[in-house]
Amino acid sequence: MAVKKKAKVKAKKKPAPMNAFYAQSGGVTAVINASACGLIETARKNKTKIGKVYAGRNGIIGALTEDLIDTSKDSAASIKALRHTPSGAFGSCRFKLKSLEDNQREYERLIEVFKAHNIGYFFYNGGGDSADTCHKVSQLSEKMGYPIQAIHVPKTVDNDLPITDNCPGFGSVAKYIAVSTREASFDVASMCKTSTKVFVLEVMGRHAGWIAAAGAMASDEDCEIPIVVLFPEVEFDQKKFLARVDQLVKKHGYCSVVVSEGVHWPDGRFLAETGLKDAFGHSQLGGAAPVVAQMIQKELGHKYHWAVADYLQRAARHIASKTDVDQAYAMGKAAVQFAIKGHNAIMPTIDRISNSPYKWKVGMAPLSKVANVEKMMPSNFISKDGFGITKRCREYLAPLIKGEDYPPYKNGLPKYVTLKNVAVPKKLKKFEI
Amino acid sequence: MAVKKKAKVKAKKKPAPMNAFYAQSGGVTAVINASACGLIETARKNKTKIGKVYAGRNGIIGALTEDLIDTSKDSAASIKALRHTPSGAFGSCRFKLKSLEDNQREYERLIEVFKAHNIGYFFYNGGGDSADTCHKVSQLSEKMGYPIQAIHVPKTVDNDLPITDNCPGFGSVAKYIAVSTREASFDVASMCKTSTKVFVLEVMGRHAGWIAAAGAMASDEDCEIPIVVLFPEVEFDQKKFLARVDQLVKKHGYCSVVVSEGVHWPDGRFLAETGLKDAFGHSQLGGAAPVVAQMIQKELGHKYHWAVADYLQRAARHIASKTDVDQAYAMGKAAVQFAIKGHNAIMPTIDRISNSPYKWKVGMAPLSKVANVEKMMPSNFISKDGFGITKRCREYLAPLIKGEDYPPYKNGLPKYVTLKNVAVPKKLKKFEI
Repeated sequence: MAVKKKAKVKAKKKPAPMNAFYAQSGGVTAVINASACGLIETARKNKTKIGKVYAGRNGIIGALTEDLIDTSKDSAASIKALRHTPSGAFGSCRFKLKSLEDNQREYERLIEVFKAHNIGYFFYNGGGDSADTCHKVSQLSEKMGYPIQAIHVPKTVDNDLPITDNCPGFGSVAKYIAVSTREASFDVASMCKTSTKVFVLEVMGRHAGWIAAAGAMASDEDCEIPIVVLFPEVEFDQKKFLARVDQLVKKHGYCSVVVSEGVHWPDGRFLAETGLKDAFGHSQLGGAAPVVAQMIQKELGHKYHWAVADYLQRAARHIASKTDVDQAYAMGKAAVQFAIKGHNAIMPTIDRISNSPYKWKVGMAPLSKVANVEKMMPSNFISKDGFGITKRCREYLAPLIKGEDYPPYKNGLPKYVTLKNVAVPKKLKKFEI
Repeated sequence: MAVKKKAKVKAKKKPAPMNAFYAQSGGVTAVINASACGLIETARKNKTKIGKVYAGRNGIIGALTEDLIDTSKDSAASIKALRHTPSGAFGSCRFKLKSLEDNQREYERLIEVFKAHNIGYFFYNGGGDSADTCHKVSQLSEKMGYPIQAIHVPKTVDNDLPITDNCPGFGSVAKYIAVSTREASFDVASMCKTSTKVFVLEVMGRHAGWIAAAGAMASDEDCEIPIVVLFPEVEFDQKKFLARVDQLVKKHGYCSVVVSEGVHWPDGRFLAETGLKDAFGHSQLGGAAPVVAQMIQKELGHKYHWAVADYLQRAARHIASKTDVDQAYAMGKAAVQFAIKGHNAIMPTIDRISNSPYKWKVGMAPLSKVANVEKMMPSNFISKDGFGITKRCREYLAPLIKGEDYPPYKNGLPKYVTLKNVAVPKKLKKFEI
């Protein structure tokens, strides 16, 4: 009997599953936490395959400084609430790892931290720059002999990751911009007889005009609104632009202008350049709207109002797209499922099957084809005059802004969760970044 | 028999009820159409007392130019949809009537139009300047012998009308600003380790800081957020402000700043003065946020982001406050009920009965005490340091932002109604304004 019992115990004993590291990177979105939710909930359902999920406090910096968050300390209810909470619950960062050749010290440190905490899975939730970081980490197995599976979870309001049909985060910004443009246009239409005739809204999008394009969705067959879109893909032609605005004001009494922060003059200068650069070396922009508005006042004499949506657009979980929330969750879930199947150096993707009815499925892309590739708007998405979108673009965008997914409210305000974010005890020496 | 029949017909015959004129004035809001809805629906239920409701196309200008809209041409469903449609469905205007002594010609014209269209009720939906116009019209009976009942329907996002506890339009802007400040603050909190540390949001409110105060509601006992509010009631003290921001960034890693467009230097100059003035002689403002943000960057070195909500805040019907929608509707309804009872020169008001549970009722104020009186924030609503709100202010604001009242959606966008706005045939000669 005693022997039999012992044998039974022995048979049950398996090696403890490897833990996972998860981090949020770059600009946060209304739904990046929905990906975190999908990832953590799926990992919790697969405890025999994946141990704990350790989140990096402030992204990859948390890995380098061994500042790990034990997500198991938060309740199922708190993790569930991530689905309706905007921003990055564990903190994000703008920090790009150099290549292995240029900064071996950082990669050695990552391995040291991974080893110390039994981490075998690396989930990185971000955009193009982050996909590059994730790709570098995925090569640690081969180049430095440390077995790790690195999977990138797509996220970017800029919608500029390749291969995937669209990027989680974008649909909700697109919905916010479409809704806001419609609402503000109704406002201007009411005021234009004696007051404001042109409303200018500045939206995000440095190099790709995806978000600006969403502004054009405010107008449809049920609700026609005169809108001029200024895309970063189209060189700014002041004369042509002012003529278009004036034509619309003469015809409708008013018009709205949706201007991307990335709109630039023919010589490449942004309308809104400030001279500041972020950690990735990108110019920090802001202020294209007042430039455009003052141009309209000076040259056409029309009274204007302008708004700069800035963080409001990407944080607006209160008006998130249901499609977007569902897809963000699905990407986090798929990342874990792919990891369990043994994949490395990949990114789950959203593959569109059909437009009407809208159908999509989860696909997979190799990181070698994702990292450092920026997807621009197809040229046939921008109308010939350069100020609007085509039917094809409209068909692409329509399902992405569809459906509402309201967060719960308390006392008139959305009830967003703040996690405990309990630190995992440190085992290593301090590391200076 | 024949005689009896005739007598019956005679007994039924009453003089046709007088028609009503309704107009929207000044800056529009997310819920001014809810007042129009309440007013028109209530008039339709009282057809024996009030004939047709004629709306002024573009406010009072529609009355002067005999450009009247026959609201009876729109279906019950369309009128009902006004309740969830932002902006002014009949067009608004910024146009202030001079005094009777200074411009008798315009008042004579009003009487001419009222007579031609059998108008005995004048409903004017606006803020302080409009209350003044409405008050002048109410005196036509006495001063020019034309019998008319003039009733002002309160509306202003600035919340600065006297006597009424609050103004329809304000609660929804307050909710939008509170929600947006919470969301953007979550965003900055995620980014602050390596990127943005201060987020600056510019909000409306030229002279009264009601809307700015709503920004502070983003932080509560369930969700603490470091927020600095800049009120127009408090002279801007750059040194003290920067010290406060720096202190919060040092403590929390980040902070949000909510700045009213009306914030000014000790010498009275607005931080954001542009030099332009509107039809009422008010300075046109915009751009306090970038001024404050750049000050923070220059003096403290913190990376910033800034947003200017502008029209987005007052048009945001998608996140309207249920309290606000209900009250806006009730004000339109009460205006008709008061008119039927024979009142003139009054404004229905919102009278607060208790805070917890929140109870209110419809009251009545004489226009002589409303016109040209601007209600400022009570000084005990602003915290001693000048950068926040007191418990008393919080208790005042809390019920006003409570409840959601989502509009219906189609294809991911709110389904707002555009009325037919059929013109009433003109009977008079043209009139030049």
